[in-house]
Amino acid sequence: MTSRTHHFPVQVYYEDTDHSGVVYHANYLKYFERAREGVIGPEALVTLWKKRGLGFAVYKAAIDYLDGAEFGDTLDIVSTVRKDSDYRLVWHQEAWRPNTQKPAVKAEIHLVCLDRDKQLKPIPDVGITYR
Amino acid sequence: MTSRTHHFPVQVYYEDTDHSGVVYHANYLKYFERAREGVIGPEALVTLWKKRGLGFAVYKAAIDYLDGAEFGDTLDIVSTVRKDSDYRLVWHQEAWRPNTQKPAVKAEIHLVCLDRDKQLKPIPDVGITYR
Amino acid sequence: MTSRTHHFPVQVYYEDTDHSGVVYHANYLKYFERAREGVIGPEALVTLWKKRGLGFAVYKAAIDYLDGAEFGDTLDIVSTVRKDSDYRLVWHQEAWRPNTQKPAVKAEIHLVCLDRDKQLKPIPDVGITYR
Amino acid sequence: MTSRTHHFPVQVYYEDTDHSGVVYHANYLKYFERAREGVIGPEALVTLWKKRGLGFAVYKAAIDYLDGAEFGDTLDIVSTVRKDSDYRLVWHQEAWRPNTQKPAVKAEIHLVCLDRDKQLKPIPDVGITYR
Repeated sequence: MTSRTHHFPVQVYYEDTDHSGVVYHANYLKYFERAREGVIGPEALVTLWKKRGLGFAVYKAAIDYLDGAEFGDTLDIVSTVRKDSDYRLVWHQEAWRPNTQKPAVKAEIHLVCLDRDKQLKPIPDVGITYR
Repeated sequence: MTSRTHHFPVQVYYEDTDHSGVVYHANYLKYFERAREGVIGPEALVTLWKKRGLGFAVYKAAIDYLDGAEFGDTLDIVSTVRKDSDYRLVWHQEAWRPNTQKPAVKAEIHLVCLDRDKQLKPIPDVGITYR
Repeated sequence: MTSRTHHFPVQVYYEDTDHSGVVYHANYLKYFERAREGVIGPEALVTLWKKRGLGFAVYKAAIDYLDGAEFGDTLDIVSTVRKDSDYRLVWHQEAWRPNTQKPAVKAEIHLVCLDRDKQLKPIPDVGITYR
Repeated sequence: MTSRTHHFPVQVYYEDTDHSGVVYHANYLKYFERAREGVIGPEALVTLWKKRGLGFAVYKAAIDYLDGAEFGDTLDIVSTVRKDSDYRLVWHQEAWRPNTQKPAVKAEIHLVCLDRDKQLKPIPDVGITYR
């Protein structure tokens, strides 16, 4: 029950780095979210929010930092997702620097679905094909 | 019709800098907003939003960058505000590095007040004393 | 002596918005920088920094906020640049929401070139064609 | 070999929230870093970087999100740290909303020390008292 592998490019800009010369550690969570939104589709997420009052929220994140991406890198964010239960999506996501043999950063991110009152709701069908 | 001068300290953290070693230029707008919220008071802003559906929005910003703040700096954000009309607050704000003779960054920021439908509303009384 | 018009798409993500429902005002400066880096090319900027120790810095920014972009919008960042002197590039940049008749945000951004010691240097040739 | 418990206040600003109305999930990593820098002291970190070319880097982070902080909240960031080996500090950090019985977010963050060439170095003495 895992989706196929998705690839999402992220360009590292000035805004992403810190004075140590590499990407600030919190920003990978942004990259991973952009990639997840790329899989689901921004329109689907907007519709879900506006029509049904539902949004995804990160419930748990475990991140390993193995290498630091630098300004100018185009990262390949590699994502798979499985439906762990009716109430939870578990994403495995990695950020790969160009021409490297292992991911710079890898993460397992658990998502739940909340309504506007922050109440837990079943994961809606957002068109992801699991297998 | 200008308020007294307000001082607000901002500590420069890793997250604020970029790989050139200084604070990323967009972040001064964050510092200036924190200082404005310090003048008005977060509780007043929360009440305004929750009770009356009103919030301030930046309408215009003009910023001069003269020096770059570095990691570890404690900046002094110096703010005055005048009420330019019933519909506009004009803030003059400066970011000072420690032990310097001129501001690192200075800005003029125009605020308007919007309701939840993004309609312009008169500036509410938020307890600022102008003189 | 103005360049041709450049277009750069920016997807608005969760990270970009604030609790008022629109893009946080400082983030347009990030979008404009990404668009400028798109014009010049990340590789050219990396080479400039690593080989010659040179980087661009924002010296002055004037921004008008006319409308608020929302989560899910794909913005069109429209940029032109002119060389104002040997030491200054002046960018005119606009952020357009889909299917609108006027820009949501427009800005004039002045860039200078600094070396690693923050000394002013002439604008290097980075392959922009002015006319 | 754990330090005493440290408390660090964080004010939640507009910049921190997203359009769902709560703090964007990546921003807690920023809060936790600010709190760690509060424990160690910005001056000690600046000296370490400038004099010895050493900086701390996040190697691993595990975060649980239990509640969402809102605009206007003053969070209490509660931190303890233990030295896990000569090469690793393990921080336990929590973000508490006002008047609540459990943390909104809790995290375990592993830090290593790197030199300017990203080589692993023993954790330097930065004045933390473990017990």
